[in-house]
This record gives sequence, structure tokens and C-alpha cells, in this order.
Amino acid sequence: MSNFGFADLRLVNAYDVAFREARSAVGASALMASAREFPSVADAVADCSLVVGTASLGHRDPQTPLRRLERGARLMKRHLAEGGRGVALLFGSEKFGLSNDDLSYCHWLMRIPTRIEHESMNLGQAVAVCLYELVRDGRAPDRKAKTIRPAGGEAVDRIATQFNAILARSGYTNPTTAASTELKVRRMVRRLGLSDKDAAMWLGMLRQISWKVDRGE
Amino acid sequence: MSNFGFADLRLVNAYDVAFREARSAVGASALMASAREFPSVADAVADCSLVVGTASLGHRDPQTPLRRLERGARLMKRHLAEGGRGVALLFGSEKFGLSNDDLSYCHWLMRIPTRIEHESMNLGQAVAVCLYELVRDGRAPDRKAKTIRPAGGEAVDRIATQFNAILARSGYTNPTTAASTELKVRRMVRRLGLSDKDAAMWLGMLRQISWKVDRGE
Repeated sequence: MSNFGFADLRLVNAYDVAFREARSAVGASALMASAREFPSVADAVADCSLVVGTASLGHRDPQTPLRRLERGARLMKRHLAEGGRGVALLFGSEKFGLSNDDLSYCHWLMRIPTRIEHESMNLGQAVAVCLYELVRDGRAPDRKAKTIRPAGGEAVDRIATQFNAILARSGYTNPTTAASTELKVRRMVRRLGLSDKDAAMWLGMLRQISWKVDRGE
Repeated sequence: MSNFGFADLRLVNAYDVAFREARSAVGASALMASAREFPSVADAVADCSLVVGTASLGHRDPQTPLRRLERGARLMKRHLAEGGRGVALLFGSEKFGLSNDDLSYCHWLMRIPTRIEHESMNLGQAVAVCLYELVRDGRAPDRKAKTIRPAGGEAVDRIATQFNAILARSGYTNPTTAASTELKVRRMVRRLGLSDKDAAMWLGMLRQISWKVDRGE
């Protein structure tokens, strides 16, 4: 919850031992300190205008829509955008999930698209996956890697020239097909898509190799 | 991994105690039994054509692209679709994450879009979220709730009529504005969007209330 920015944790019939231990969770102490306990699901969701239960295919009641997480999360966000006050996401216990009584407080149900053969998920992982889906943004740009600038044409040319010189002096290049080999190397160096910084590193390495190759003659 | 259908677990320098305990994970015993241990990251990813490391913003090396999970997962799937053989997703230890040495085997890095203020995630939750993003399908249809059929117009009309009759006999309806009240009730009943089954249940309940109201007169 803390990782994804959700702040309102409500517990019903919490297992005290685990709850007390969890209070020390790294980075989430503020969240745990503000968690509230309620005597029943009805009390916990009394101020919510939408209650979504989590369930597996097995648990479903034919009268209650069971949606995949991808679509369910969209509907929850739309409910909030349209002015809905309080959207609750209800999870059952690790062992038994939500009871029929719990489910009767849900407007609809949501399931994580797990394999049919292995539906039951660890509770902490299920919560993480649901909250991630609520905050994910398929159109969010990556943070620009400002320091990655492509190498300029001149630097790339110098690398190719240096490389070709080394190959010629090393005996790799056959003099009769030298022109064609040089072209191939020039193209290959361009395909490397070197960054500015990497180009400088390459030139340094090639200069040193070139010096060694010359000494070896 | 088992929940989302990933089968190839590879471990480097595994913590034996935890690994032996994990072998008993409910529903995932086949996966755990086939997990393989490798002496180094290099060995573990030797047959992979793309290695993606997981990192937080803090860990980033300015030379290596760090992508958000949403986009990174798309690129991983495209790599496989284009015939890439072996895509590895590399996670570090719970405590220290990936070392610089580990990161040097990665083509690029990926981060889960957590809050900047609380970036560090539980390892199991981080794995679940990444694998979920790889299998999620925003266009997957919900399983049709075949049993939910909307109530027919006749049933809805009978409910509204029955309801109006009860309200009139209960003294709710003011005789001088009866026509307008009846219209309002009729519209309200339509807004309920009742299912076929729920309509039958409503008619049964209203019939009983009606009988009780008649007896009270």
C-alpha cells in the first residue's frame, strides 16, 4: 500500500499477532500507525460508495459480476473520477478468502488473471498486484536518461578508421578485398549505436591497441 | 511465478534455508522442484538473448536505460515475438538488490512505478507485480456472466404497478398528486436495472407485502 501511495488501511477481525509484527514494516510505519480496526465489514465500508471484493473463479456467485482486474481497476478509477466517494477494495484472509457474508457487501467482484490451475495467491502479492494495476500508467514516459547522447558522426568515423587500421596491420584484412572489408567494418561500427561517452572510451581503447599492434611489427 | 504461468526459476547463490522451506509452497511444488541453481549470474543467463534487471531510481547507472515496468514489459514481449530466445528477468536479494556486477549483465533496467518516498519493495511482491504486467491483457473480455439476464419489460411493469398499489394503500401517495408519484415510481423501478432472477424475487416480496398491507386495512 505504501509503495503505491494508498493510505487508508482498514482491518476487520485482524489477527493481532501478525498485525503487531507488521507495524514495524520498513517504510510503512505511518500507514500501519494510522490503520483502523472495525468490528464488521459493514462498519468498515459504511462510508464507501463502491465496494469491490476480490475472488477467484471458484468463489463466484452467478448474480454478482466477476471482472478481470484490468477492467475492474478501470471501473474503480472511473467511479472516483465521476465523483464517487470512497472506493473500497476488500480482501479476505490468506486461508479462506471472503465469506459469502463478506461478498454480500460487494457491488461486484474482481479477479487477478492467474492460471486456472493455480488460482490461489499469497495475500500480500495479491494486494500488491491489485494496487499496481490501479496506479499503472501505460502512457507514462520513461524518465529521460539525459546523459545518454548518441556519438557524433565524426567520432564514429574515427572509430571505424582506427579499427580498420588495426585490422589491416594485424593481418585480418586481405589486401585484395580491403575496400570491401573496410566498408563492412564501417557499417558494423555504425550498427553499435554508440553513445557519446562510449565512443570516447572506444577511441581510448583502440588507440592503446593500435600502439601495441605497431610495437609488435 | 506459478500463479502467472512462468516455469523457469534460476537461482544464484540461494539462501539454502529459505530455499528448502519454499519447496513446500502450495500449488508451486512442480516449479520449485525444477528450479536450478547456478554458480554465477553469467552462468544463469548464458542462454538468454535479453537480460532485464530490476532496480530503483537510486540504483541507476546513467549509461543503462531504466524503463518503467509498463513499457519494459512491452519491450520484453516484443523481443520474444521477434524471435528472441530466452528473456531473463533478474531480481536481486531482498536486502541489497542487484550489485553493480549483476547489473553489468543486463541489457537494460526496469523499475516498478512505486512512490519515490517508498521505493523499496518486498521481493515476492515485486516479482508478482512484474510477472502480472507481463501476462496482463487490457483487452481480455470478462467471462460472460451467462446467468445475468436483464428483466423483461412486462416484469418490470408489474413490479412498478404492484409497488404503486402498495404505496397508495399505505398512505404514501397523496391522491391529488397520485399520477405524478406513479410516474416517479415507474421511472425509479426502471433505474434499478433488475435482472430476470431479481425481478422474480421482487415480485414475490411485493406480493407478500401487498397481502400484509391489505390485511392491515
